[in-house]
Amino acid sequence: MRTIKLLIAYDGTDFCGWQRQAGQDIPSQKARSVQAVIEAALEQMHTRPVALAGSGRTDSGVHAAGQVAHFHTDIDSIPPDRFVPALNGLLPQDIRILDAAAVRPDFHARFDARMRTYRYHFICGRRALPHESRYALQLWQMPSIDLLNAYCRLLVGERDCSIFAGAGDASLSRSRYIFHAAFFVEGNRLIFEISANAFLWKMVRSIAGTFLHYGERNTPPERLRDIIASGDRSLAGPTLPPQGLFLWKVDYYVANGQ
Amino acid sequence: MRTIKLLIAYDGTDFCGWQRQAGQDIPSQKARSVQAVIEAALEQMHTRPVALAGSGRTDSGVHAAGQVAHFHTDIDSIPPDRFVPALNGLLPQDIRILDAAAVRPDFHARFDARMRTYRYHFICGRRALPHESRYALQLWQMPSIDLLNAYCRLLVGERDCSIFAGAGDASLSRSRYIFHAAFFVEGNRLIFEISANAFLWKMVRSIAGTFLHYGERNTPPERLRDIIASGDRSLAGPTLPPQGLFLWKVDYYVANGQ
Repeated sequence: MRTIKLLIAYDGTDFCGWQRQAGQDIPSQKARSVQAVIEAALEQMHTRPVALAGSGRTDSGVHAAGQVAHFHTDIDSIPPDRFVPALNGLLPQDIRILDAAAVRPDFHARFDARMRTYRYHFICGRRALPHESRYALQLWQMPSIDLLNAYCRLLVGERDCSIFAGAGDASLSRSRYIFHAAFFVEGNRLIFEISANAFLWKMVRSIAGTFLHYGERNTPPERLRDIIASGDRSLAGPTLPPQGLFLWKVDYYVANGQ
Repeated sequence: MRTIKLLIAYDGTDFCGWQRQAGQDIPSQKARSVQAVIEAALEQMHTRPVALAGSGRTDSGVHAAGQVAHFHTDIDSIPPDRFVPALNGLLPQDIRILDAAAVRPDFHARFDARMRTYRYHFICGRRALPHESRYALQLWQMPSIDLLNAYCRLLVGERDCSIFAGAGDASLSRSRYIFHAAFFVEGNRLIFEISANAFLWKMVRSIAGTFLHYGERNTPPERLRDIIASGDRSLAGPTLPPQGLFLWKVDYYVANGQ
């Protein structure tokens, strides 16, 4: 048995999210998850069910440019990188396998992950075109990037993120270590990028929505520091919609997890 | 009666193209055209059928960032720019009205157009991600932009474009005036942009495919000049798929057609 680590990109628009839904094997069930669609391709290759474990869930409508997952295989007749064309040939166009590598047998895509990085994309100051609004949120005004980055600096370090937890979050602890957070312009997009050891449910979209909410009102960073520290969810701004969000990359303790 | 000029963007993926198809008003008919969808929204506003004339057709799967169309209206109770939110409220997300303006009564989106500009988008040198491949074509190698631009310079002026006409093209004359053609890099995309008074069927995709075909083989521009002049369709390269193509803008003799 070998353990294979996959690097995966997907367009989340037509998925209920990463995670397989209970009852999804029943054909009448509508929910289509990324995990279940890739597991079906793996089952076709192996002629038996194969479980795929991802680095974490992404919500319905959220995209990925660098999701990571692993599975165990008894197919040892092909080099590991041949899983890329083999799986892509079986998968729909809205999922693409970017890389496949053999890793140490006990590698785990979720438990060995050191840092997750998300990006949220915005189109600012003009109407987003249809080919843009599938993957970005339109803002009529360009916000103050300096002020948003002053808010971002408040996040870095170990933080109680209760204020940014989605209502249904079931985490035992709401403390997360945030390595980096920044707003910057790339091409014709405004991008919010954030890296942490892990995220609460809907946390990235809640942070971005809260920062934009207070940024519009020119709230000073000192006030925002108190708001975050309060842990009072009712002070958070709106949670942004999923279409602008990408799971951008996942880093592991050992390069390539090998 | 007023004449209203619309500026329109659409994601062509789920359309059979711009043009209304015969029998499209029969619900069992699958073909969904941009023109018919907007005409249905206009009919809802006017409570009678309203004909919409576009600057030209776009093919199935081809996108638009700046299509132009006009219609006649007896709704004179609202300022023309109110057609933008009114229509967008009735239209699906893959069509957006960007602008609406009253123009001279005899303005015609097709016959008054002076120049059409198309862009074809490429992702080069790496696997396109799912959110990119919906709107761009992946090329494994970055082509020689200098050589492609030497080919482009051969096109400028009045040209017999027979070699680039799709097999079903029914134009009387295959001579077109090409104002401008160039390959350039923008962000992480290679873009082919071309402006002409008008285009033959599938002409942009045939030019781009032919240039890439001969560019890969390092064919000198002098040889390509002879190939274009030959009018021999069998010497053309492959016609590229529609997903990378955008109708980018349409220019009129008088600014804003007013």
